[in-house]
Amino acid sequence: MALMKSWVESANAADCPFPLNNLPYGVFSNGEDEARCGVAIGDMILDVTLLEEEGVLVVDEDDPVFDLPFWNDFMEMGTEAWTALRARLTTLLTDGGDDAISGNADLKSRALVAQSDAEMHMPIVVTEYTDFYAGRHHATNVGTMFRGAENALPPNWLHIPIGYNGRASSVIVSGTDVRRPWGQLKSPDHDMPAFLPCRRFDLELEMGAIVGTSSDGPITVQEADDNIFGYVLLNDWSARDIQAWEYQPLGPFQAKATATTISPWIVTKAALEPFRCDTPAREFELLPHLKDVGPMLYDIDLSVTLAPEGKDATTIAETNYSQMYYSAAQQLAHHTTAGSPMNVGDLLGSGTISGPTKSERGSLLELSWGGKEPMTLDTGEARTFLEDGDTLTLHGAAKGDGYQIGFGDCTGAVLPALKDPYAR
Amino acid sequence: MALMKSWVESANAADCPFPLNNLPYGVFSNGEDEARCGVAIGDMILDVTLLEEEGVLVVDEDDPVFDLPFWNDFMEMGTEAWTALRARLTTLLTDGGDDAISGNADLKSRALVAQSDAEMHMPIVVTEYTDFYAGRHHATNVGTMFRGAENALPPNWLHIPIGYNGRASSVIVSGTDVRRPWGQLKSPDHDMPAFLPCRRFDLELEMGAIVGTSSDGPITVQEADDNIFGYVLLNDWSARDIQAWEYQPLGPFQAKATATTISPWIVTKAALEPFRCDTPAREFELLPHLKDVGPMLYDIDLSVTLAPEGKDATTIAETNYSQMYYSAAQQLAHHTTAGSPMNVGDLLGSGTISGPTKSERGSLLELSWGGKEPMTLDTGEARTFLEDGDTLTLHGAAKGDGYQIGFGDCTGAVLPALKDPYAR
Repeated sequence: MALMKSWVESANAADCPFPLNNLPYGVFSNGEDEARCGVAIGDMILDVTLLEEEGVLVVDEDDPVFDLPFWNDFMEMGTEAWTALRARLTTLLTDGGDDAISGNADLKSRALVAQSDAEMHMPIVVTEYTDFYAGRHHATNVGTMFRGAENALPPNWLHIPIGYNGRASSVIVSGTDVRRPWGQLKSPDHDMPAFLPCRRFDLELEMGAIVGTSSDGPITVQEADDNIFGYVLLNDWSARDIQAWEYQPLGPFQAKATATTISPWIVTKAALEPFRCDTPAREFELLPHLKDVGPMLYDIDLSVTLAPEGKDATTIAETNYSQMYYSAAQQLAHHTTAGSPMNVGDLLGSGTISGPTKSERGSLLELSWGGKEPMTLDTGEARTFLEDGDTLTLHGAAKGDGYQIGFGDCTGAVLPALKDPYAR
Repeated sequence: MALMKSWVESANAADCPFPLNNLPYGVFSNGEDEARCGVAIGDMILDVTLLEEEGVLVVDEDDPVFDLPFWNDFMEMGTEAWTALRARLTTLLTDGGDDAISGNADLKSRALVAQSDAEMHMPIVVTEYTDFYAGRHHATNVGTMFRGAENALPPNWLHIPIGYNGRASSVIVSGTDVRRPWGQLKSPDHDMPAFLPCRRFDLELEMGAIVGTSSDGPITVQEADDNIFGYVLLNDWSARDIQAWEYQPLGPFQAKATATTISPWIVTKAALEPFRCDTPAREFELLPHLKDVGPMLYDIDLSVTLAPEGKDATTIAETNYSQMYYSAAQQLAHHTTAGSPMNVGDLLGSGTISGPTKSERGSLLELSWGGKEPMTLDTGEARTFLEDGDTLTLHGAAKGDGYQIGFGDCTGAVLPALKDPYAR
């Protein structure tokens, strides 16, 4: 597939993250205006809420769909509506296509907002949030650190996508600062735990899949793939010292409760279609209900940069989404095996994505090997875990022939812990 | 405190679960009518939605609060509104009180619906669901079975209320049948896992606390207690064989995803006030942010009955909520330590409540000691885990001087597993 040309000139540059091929969905506000639904094109945002008000976009003939600043109502309409909107937006934005916007100077000036003028908001109401642990290199690295190389992968790991329910209320949009949490910790050299600010605050480089169609009961991998609306970048901020003390026997809880940051644009499954690729070779055949049904992952380049306060950013990791062992569809299918209903707006984190080499590790836990091997940033500072003032940014792009499908940054700065979390 | 007399005669019997002292909140429908908010009094339900429509109850002067069949909007109004509604309902239902209903035969006949004619629905929209593991006898029993008596309690257990996020979409109201799930299992005598119907389907006798006031950041135990709106009985259906295979290293996932049943009436914190009691003696002092602030538990008698299909029920366990090691307020306070926002409608399961003796164990896992010691029902059948057709019911009541505060049954029947979960 090649670049599709738009009359929005900035969308046609080879390094633009938002060409006509992409059309990712988000929620934005411009100055004092209320937040609205929009689609990114080049360096602009097309105001979908306005276009619906003006009758240029008609998704539902009876009721407005974009009158609330979330994409949930639209997702709820189902796959035919998803296809129709993408087709309509493509026609409206194609160079030489429908000139309802391009040929109407007044509408054009009102419907296109510069991304640099806009503030981005959460694109969806996150109904429930689940985080997986489905990157083999990450699970092997962490397992080796905690249990030794021989027991690195638990016996179940190659048979089911291990996951746990997270906290939807803690999901935030890129650009929101993250406060270093307090938590109960126990140092190996102390007998008793203490309540202290986290000392090992970390990132996890992940992708998030958004469920766009609800289900009630077990669904197949193909049905799960059909039910996914799109993808975002996801940083699952993790308090490693809280996790070490709390996670036995029922898994991580407060270690993962501070924040999970997502990128502001939902890149649709449709936009990623040309980048599908196979999951890795498997040691054990998966059980039939979890088997691949064609290429299930995507070739998406991912990287992480870290910028100490007031300083330049260093790229600390580069990897690719194709390093996952389980696809989001397989995770979603597994999620339904025991009968749990899944709802529009559910968010599934992929699990940390690490590649086989050191520079491909998607967490500081792995990059600093549990804090034992500090890494040196380009600015000369050493890092084991995150320090106050650090800004962490995830980047992602699927690279095509003369164009790319970008995700927009997934970024957040670490604020110092509160002096007293109970001061009122 | 003694029985408060109501003009609804059935509410004055000493064994009535819903005297004027109780006034629990639920959602009901009567025949074809839409579901509405109501309060239980004696063997009747007072239609709160109707009373608001008629102007007999005014909670918000500008907008209706009970026009949706959930108590979330009312909870959102805050503690003053909670106190005011309870006071108003008490006055309206007291023998010799305000005669707006009792003195208006037409309104009285429309506003009071027999419980026997009503179908109960979910009383709230469950925003997110968290399940704890905070009963010491249960944790000791399970730990002894899995890790031996010496390692029964993990090192963190006496210092933090261990919990994990559950799946809100799987919470259902009492009376809903529960389908035995399929899942990935591995028998100890097989090398490879298989996808099969669960063979060790179990109950967990718990109480659920409902968050009625939202928070954003760490809150104290006192603030947490203030934010709890009320309590329900809760059965956390558990697939033990799925759990055994999946739970390392990130905790239970599909084992707990089939269903969690709650009783239909929210018993308010106000109704339970006379039954407050202390948490048990502690081996280690809790850290300051988790310490008790007065009596934090409640003296509530709990029991479980099991009825094989078409047969009489046997009481299989009797215990008391005062057996918990951590209160719901301490669990909620811990839940906020890392900064996670809590929302109106969040549901916190206490964890299985077992007492020190065998007959006080709140799960079949414990009652049958991992399936090794089948129990015999009054009907002569043996049980290790649940069988298809079994109806499981939790009962709960706080017992006062000549009255009791009942919860209403929390019941569900086990349906056989689907023959093929993927047949369409």
